[in-house]
Amino acid sequence: MKRAVVLLSGGLDSATALYWARGRGYEAVALSAHYGQRHARELRAARAVARRAGAEFVRLGLRLPWLGSSSLVDRSRSLPDIPARRIGKGRIPSTYVPGRNAVFLSLAISLADAKGAEAVVIGSNAQDFSGYPDCRPEFIAAFAKAAHLGTRRGAEGKRLSVLAPLQRLDKAGIVRLALRLGVPLELTWSCYAGGRRPCGRCDSCKLRARGFAAAHAADPALR
Amino acid sequence: MKRAVVLLSGGLDSATALYWARGRGYEAVALSAHYGQRHARELRAARAVARRAGAEFVRLGLRLPWLGSSSLVDRSRSLPDIPARRIGKGRIPSTYVPGRNAVFLSLAISLADAKGAEAVVIGSNAQDFSGYPDCRPEFIAAFAKAAHLGTRRGAEGKRLSVLAPLQRLDKAGIVRLALRLGVPLELTWSCYAGGRRPCGRCDSCKLRARGFAAAHAADPALR
Repeated sequence: MKRAVVLLSGGLDSATALYWARGRGYEAVALSAHYGQRHARELRAARAVARRAGAEFVRLGLRLPWLGSSSLVDRSRSLPDIPARRIGKGRIPSTYVPGRNAVFLSLAISLADAKGAEAVVIGSNAQDFSGYPDCRPEFIAAFAKAAHLGTRRGAEGKRLSVLAPLQRLDKAGIVRLALRLGVPLELTWSCYAGGRRPCGRCDSCKLRARGFAAAHAADPALR
Repeated sequence: MKRAVVLLSGGLDSATALYWARGRGYEAVALSAHYGQRHARELRAARAVARRAGAEFVRLGLRLPWLGSSSLVDRSRSLPDIPARRIGKGRIPSTYVPGRNAVFLSLAISLADAKGAEAVVIGSNAQDFSGYPDCRPEFIAAFAKAAHLGTRRGAEGKRLSVLAPLQRLDKAGIVRLALRLGVPLELTWSCYAGGRRPCGRCDSCKLRARGFAAAHAADPALR
């Protein structure tokens, strides 16, 4: 059976990417990481989603002291609270975690190369790349080329692909795809604040709400 | 002052890369990682070299359970012991650590992006890339492109470069460059076995010895 390593944060996008991979016939290994994010509770969601999907779950603990430059890690800073239509326009948000997707993708290709998996799957998408540079399709494409060249699989003439199946979807499109794939959306967690309930004010909550609204669906995580 | 993050394992190549960066006027931050390598003693060498160079030293502890597939991590396996002229010819050696340079480079660009550094420096070179896919110039070039595209610096129109100044040198060339730059070679550690003294039998010891011999120099680490 073909195998894929799926980066799983526990949010809407990565859970959908996991179910997409499953639907494509991949035996999935879900990879999550604690890196000091204030919403570390997303890792509980990731574990629950992986279990539901029948995927192996690998959770890493990363201590990267310099990530305190991000408001997603430094709890003493406030999270952005701006109108949904302005999210991703203009400057890189303070929630940007330097090089996060490069680090996550590298860990995933390392795991994939060790396990002989033929693909790495990431849930980055159109909605994010307007704000975070490491979600841009150009970055993913350049990284994919590097991944193929710098691994045993690539050197042995096999393929190690980096797949970003949500790349051209907006949040409404992702919600529709998730519903079609039967993603257990009630288990997912997107809120950056990481409280008991989604805050409704952070960028991630607003984009998610807008996605469900545009897809004419109710968010089962808010019940 | 311009800044660079230098990947520093504590061996001959990375120590030379650090002094090269210093010579080019970079204020260097040295980045090392413990990833379960059997020669974790190289990290003591890295710290000593960084201190001598006046560089900030950042040491990470990575727990990547799948790296046991490498004989450089799994102590129950034996290290290759083959004639020096055959090293790097043919198959990828068992000491290959899956995706190691991708992971290290990603951590370095993350640190560089957080600190506003304009370059990441790696000591990979001609001698290694014959064996390890993640030392090949094509990999480094593809990764460099991804690093520029996926970081704040790149997105803001500044440059984040990945430099591999030893790329076209063989070990003798590196020894000559190290001597010219005043690298404290007596502090460096290359042996994979990680005992009290270099074993003289592993690939790394043999390549180092061959480099010093070809450069008509004595290895001060063997005194």
